[in-house]
Parts: sequence; C-alpha cells; structure tokens
Amino acid sequence: MSEPFSLHPQLAGDTAPVGDLGLSRVLLMNDSRFPWLILTPRRAGIREFIELSEPDQATMWREILDVSRVVQALYKPDKLNTCAIGNRVPQLHVHIVARFAADAAWPAPVFGFGTARPYAPDALAAETARLSAALGHL
Amino acid sequence: MSEPFSLHPQLAGDTAPVGDLGLSRVLLMNDSRFPWLILTPRRAGIREFIELSEPDQATMWREILDVSRVVQALYKPDKLNTCAIGNRVPQLHVHIVARFAADAAWPAPVFGFGTARPYAPDALAAETARLSAALGHL
Repeated sequence: MSEPFSLHPQLAGDTAPVGDLGLSRVLLMNDSRFPWLILTPRRAGIREFIELSEPDQATMWREILDVSRVVQALYKPDKLNTCAIGNRVPQLHVHIVARFAADAAWPAPVFGFGTARPYAPDALAAETARLSAALGHL
Repeated sequence: MSEPFSLHPQLAGDTAPVGDLGLSRVLLMNDSRFPWLILTPRRAGIREFIELSEPDQATMWREILDVSRVVQALYKPDKLNTCAIGNRVPQLHVHIVARFAADAAWPAPVFGFGTARPYAPDALAAETARLSAALGHL
C-alpha cells in the first residue's frame, strides 16, 4: 500500500481548490495581486518531476500546457511564469502565474514578493468557479 | 523563410555555452554560487511553452527531464528548481538550478538574488566541459 495523497498544509492554507485534472489538483493562490494557479500531482511523496513515473511525467506536461492555455485565454497576460521551486514546501507543485508589465512585482518573480492580498470571499468563489468552468472545457 | 535563431544578448552575456541538445541550447549561468543551467529552444520568436509546435513541446519536456537527471546526478542537490520566467528576457528559457539548504539564497529563489559571482575562467571551462560530457551521455 502506498501512502495516500494529501495536500501540504501550507499549500492548502494559501490557496483555494479549483478542481482536479487527471493527475493534478488545481489550486488558486489566494492573492488577488496576481492570477496565480498551482498544479500539484495527486501523488504522495513526490518532490521532483523526475520522481514521477513516465506516464505521470507525460500527463504532468500536458496539464501544465493545458492550464497555461486556459490562463493565457482568460487573463491575456504579458507573460506566463511557470515554476517548480519547492524549497519551503517540497511537495511537487507548479506555479503558473499570469504576469503583467503593470503588476505589483513586475519584472521580479512573484515568489516571496511582499504580502499576499487575499480575495474578498465572494471574489474568491467567483474566480475559482470561473477557472473551474474553463478547466472543465479542456 | 522564418527568422534564424539567435541567443538574446543578455542570456549570452550571463552564461557560457555547454552544448546543443535536439531542440535546446544548454547554457551554464556564470554564477559560481549556484549550479545553474539554462535551456533555450533554438527557435526564433518563441516566448512561451504553448507557442512551441507540438513536437517541440514534447522535445522540450524530454530535455527538461534529461537535464534535470544530469543535474541531480552531478550535484546531488537538496532540491531542483525549474522555472521559465522571462519577464526581463522574453526569449523562452528554462532555468534548472541545483539548490542546497546551505546555499547563499536558500530557501529564496535565486532569481535576482544578490550579485552573481563569476567562475574563475579555468573553473568555468572545467564546469562546462564536465556538463557537456554528462549531457553527451544522454
């Protein structure tokens, strides 16, 4: 028996769930400064892409590209930022962030930049619903 | 006729060439604080993964994973960081950085962290040769 997947408490605390793709749980970072999604494969004990099985690696990439297309279409950013870091939260998770030349952190990366500005509860629910619908069309 | 590939001057200036894979040019960031590779697809005008053709997308992922395995084997880092940002240099390029809990920036990302410490010329030549040999075994 392998251990079950569970979301790292810090990831769970910082985000709202959007939905599950074939492999990944999709999360919205609760920081209204940036349209900021996170994909985390629903596999226990995985820290790196190269630790995923080959089929999971292929699915991971397809889901990164699919979510990138959705983010591109919804937000029309100046640039996508796609990052797997995990120095603080080792559970493999991929940030996909819609960046704008006018956003608060530009051109710096968003990671560790200033203080998150949480969405109002209604806005968070609306945004996750909008994303969930867009991902449902994949 | 499509425009030819050329490396963005800032990427060229900050790095030393390691070699070419099927799609990507592999570069070593000239910053001895971190084992830090960059892959950039030899395609003109591409800023995002989703702008690559489907075959190039597949090759890009294989090369990211292959280089990640080489970096993991050579440096035995505590964590790999894999990031495509490009806010300053829009030409698509992927950072693959070997991170250590004892490195200068840990746990922060390396991007924009302090000032690069260039390798001594001999050390830079030795490191690119070592990486080139390791990538040659792919």
